[in-house]
Amino acid sequence: MNRTVLLIATFDTKEQEAVFLIKCLQARGVEVLTMDAGILSPSGISVDVDQDQVARHGGNSLKDLLAAGDKSACLFNMIRGAEILTAELYEQGRFHGVISIGGGQGTDIGCAAMRCLPTGVPKLMVSTVASGRATFGPFVGTKDITMMHSVADMQGLNFLTRRILKNAAGAICGMVQSAGTADPGPQGIPVALSMLGTTTPGALRAKTILEDSGFEVVAYHQNGTGGIAMEDMIRGADFKGVLDLNLHEIGDRYVGGLHGAIRGDRLEAAGDTGIPQFIAPGSINYMVLGPLESLSPEMRARKLIVHNSYLTLVRLNHEELSGVGKLVAEKLNRAKGVTRVFIPLQGYSFPDRHSLPHWDPEGNRVFVDALKAGLNPEIPLVELDAHINDPEFIDPVVEEFLSVMNAT
Amino acid sequence: MNRTVLLIATFDTKEQEAVFLIKCLQARGVEVLTMDAGILSPSGISVDVDQDQVARHGGNSLKDLLAAGDKSACLFNMIRGAEILTAELYEQGRFHGVISIGGGQGTDIGCAAMRCLPTGVPKLMVSTVASGRATFGPFVGTKDITMMHSVADMQGLNFLTRRILKNAAGAICGMVQSAGTADPGPQGIPVALSMLGTTTPGALRAKTILEDSGFEVVAYHQNGTGGIAMEDMIRGADFKGVLDLNLHEIGDRYVGGLHGAIRGDRLEAAGDTGIPQFIAPGSINYMVLGPLESLSPEMRARKLIVHNSYLTLVRLNHEELSGVGKLVAEKLNRAKGVTRVFIPLQGYSFPDRHSLPHWDPEGNRVFVDALKAGLNPEIPLVELDAHINDPEFIDPVVEEFLSVMNAT
Repeated sequence: MNRTVLLIATFDTKEQEAVFLIKCLQARGVEVLTMDAGILSPSGISVDVDQDQVARHGGNSLKDLLAAGDKSACLFNMIRGAEILTAELYEQGRFHGVISIGGGQGTDIGCAAMRCLPTGVPKLMVSTVASGRATFGPFVGTKDITMMHSVADMQGLNFLTRRILKNAAGAICGMVQSAGTADPGPQGIPVALSMLGTTTPGALRAKTILEDSGFEVVAYHQNGTGGIAMEDMIRGADFKGVLDLNLHEIGDRYVGGLHGAIRGDRLEAAGDTGIPQFIAPGSINYMVLGPLESLSPEMRARKLIVHNSYLTLVRLNHEELSGVGKLVAEKLNRAKGVTRVFIPLQGYSFPDRHSLPHWDPEGNRVFVDALKAGLNPEIPLVELDAHINDPEFIDPVVEEFLSVMNAT
Repeated sequence: MNRTVLLIATFDTKEQEAVFLIKCLQARGVEVLTMDAGILSPSGISVDVDQDQVARHGGNSLKDLLAAGDKSACLFNMIRGAEILTAELYEQGRFHGVISIGGGQGTDIGCAAMRCLPTGVPKLMVSTVASGRATFGPFVGTKDITMMHSVADMQGLNFLTRRILKNAAGAICGMVQSAGTADPGPQGIPVALSMLGTTTPGALRAKTILEDSGFEVVAYHQNGTGGIAMEDMIRGADFKGVLDLNLHEIGDRYVGGLHGAIRGDRLEAAGDTGIPQFIAPGSINYMVLGPLESLSPEMRARKLIVHNSYLTLVRLNHEELSGVGKLVAEKLNRAKGVTRVFIPLQGYSFPDRHSLPHWDPEGNRVFVDALKAGLNPEIPLVELDAHINDPEFIDPVVEEFLSVMNAT
C-alpha cells in the first residue's frame, strides 16, 4: 500500500531544501503532500496546499495579513491555519506521517501542526533551533514529536544539509512504512496509570496485579507533561479506565513548582468522558523546586528533601494543601462516570511517612478535610490506614477498580 | 549491503523494550549490535557488549562501582565507558547508526555516546525526558541527534510503547538504509561560514560569491551551539577554509549572555588545524539577554534593542570590549595557518550603524585597539571604511579569501 508523507515548510525561505526532501522521499517510494506555510514569495514549485489556503484557514487572507504588517499576528495566523489543515487532511486519510523543516518560525509552525495529530502518527521536525537553551516543551507538548537538530543553518544545500535531510527523509519513510503495519493494538483492556518516583513501588504493584488480570497498563510520569499527555489520550478514547494514584502535577501547578501540570485541565478528561477513575493523592503534597541554595528562606524552613543537586522537594503548607483539596474536589464533582477517592493515612509519597522528612499528618488532614468539604457526597471517599506504597493500600484499591472495570 | 544498528540501553530496567526493539529492527533486515549500560541485574539476553565491559572502559569494574555505591560516580563511569566503546566500534566499522532508549539516566548515557560520532551518522534517542522544561543542549550538544519523546513511561510494553518503539525502529532503519547510499559529498571546495540574523545580508552576499566561484558553503548560526558545531566539524577535517565573519558567541560568552559559545574553544579549530581563516568581528559587540523588563538597571541604561518579547540585545561596555579584543588576539596568535583580520569601521552588525541604536564607534575602537595590541604583528589586520553588511566590506574580504584559497 502506498504511503504518503505531509511536508510542511515555508517555501519562501526553504524551497531548495524542500525540493531536495521531496526527491529523497519519492526515491523511497513514498508520496508527498506539500503545504507551504510561508508568507513571502509563493513556492516556485506547485504545492498541494498553498500559502493563501493556509492563511485563510488561519482566519485571514495572505493579502490582508501582509497589509496589516504585524509579524507575530502573521505567524500566529499561519500556525492556526497549518493546525486546522493538518488535522483535516489527517482525518481525510490523506497522509500517514508528517515531516517539517524550519528555523525559528518554521519550527513553531511545523510542531504546532504535529501536535494536532494523535500519538503514534509519525512526526519529524528537522530544526535549526533544537539545541542549546531551547526547551522541549513548547515544541513537543504532550506528543511523540521527533526533533532532529540540523546542526548547520538551512541556507541552501551543501554536503551537510543534504546529509541531514537525507537522514530525515529516511527516518520519516521508515516510520510511515512501519507505522500501522500489523499494529495489534492493546493486548488487554487498556487503562492509564499515573506514577512518579516517590510512588513507584505502589504503582508497580498495581500495574502487575492489573496485567495479571488481563489489563494493559500505560504508565505516565507526573513531571508536568506526562499527566497532561494522559489526559489527552483519555480524550482520544485510548483508555477504558484510569488508576490515577499520583496527582503531583496538581499540587505542583497550584504553587508554581517546576513539575506543575503544563495545562490546567489535569484530572478532568476521565470525568468528562465518563470512564471510571480511581483517585489517590500520591505526591500531591510537595512541590519540586530548584537547587537547595536557590530557595527562599521561607522555603528552606519547610519540610524538604534534596532530590539531587538540581531539585529539591518541598512540602506544601497547610493553606496551600487546603486550596489543593478544594481544587481536586471541584474537578471530581464534574465527573460523569464512576469516581472513587482513596486516602492513604500513612503518607502520600516515599518521604511522607512516619520518621521521614516530609511526614506531616496534620497537613494531610487539612488536605482531606478541604477535599471532603468540597466533594459531592455521592462520590465515595475511603480512608485506609496504610501508606500509598503499601500493599495494604494498593491491593484493596486495585481490587475495587477491577470489580468496577469488570462490571462495565 | 547489510546495515547494522548499535542499540544502547540499560538492560536492567529496559530489557523488555530493548528486546522488542531488536525484533522490530531485525524484521526490517537490519542487524543489531547491543550494548548494556545498566549497572543492576545483567541482561537476560546475550548482548554484544556487556555491562562490565562498559564499566571497565569507563575506568572501573562493575563490582568496584557497586561496592563504592556512589550513584553519580557510577553514572559518570558508565557514560565514559559507553562513549569510548561507541567511538571505537564506529571506527571499526561495526555499525552504521545508533539507537538508544532511556529515562533520565539512560538518556544521559545514550546521548553522550552519540555525541562521540561524526555529524551525519544516524542517531536516534527515544527518551521519556524529552519534554517540558528539559533543554536540548545537554542532550544534543553540537550533533545531529534526533530526540523522540516517548510520551509514556518506558515501564514495559503496551500499545503505546509498542507504537513508539516501532516508529523508532522504522526511523533508524530508514536512516541507516538511506545514509551513505550514494552520498556525493561536497559539490565544491567546502568552506564554513559563520552568520547570525544581524549580519545576514553580508553573509549571504559572501555565500553567493563563493558558490559562484565553485565553493560549497555551510553556514552556522552563532547562537551558542552553531559556532561550536562549526569548530567540531573543522576539527573533523570537513572544511578547507573558514570565513568567520560573525564572532557573536565569543563576546556573548565573555559576559555570560544567553547566546554565548557553549564551550570555550570557539575560534580555535581553524588555527589548530592550519586551514585558512578570514575573520571579522560581526556581532561581537553585544550580548543577548532576556526580556527587557528582566534586565538590571545597569543593563537597561546601555545601548540596546528589543529583539522580541523574550530577547534583548545589549551592547558590551568598553571594558568588556577591551577584554574581548584581547581574547580574540590570543586565540588568533596560536593559529598555524593563514589568518587575516578585517574590521568594518561602519559597524559590526545591523543595529551597530550610524543613527541606529547600537552605534558606538568609540566602543568598537576600544575593541580594535585591544585586538591590535595583543595580535601577533605578522597577522594582517585591515580596516575598511564600510559596514559589515555592505558590499564594500564583503567584496574585498571574499576576493582575498578566494585568492588565498585558490593558491592553496
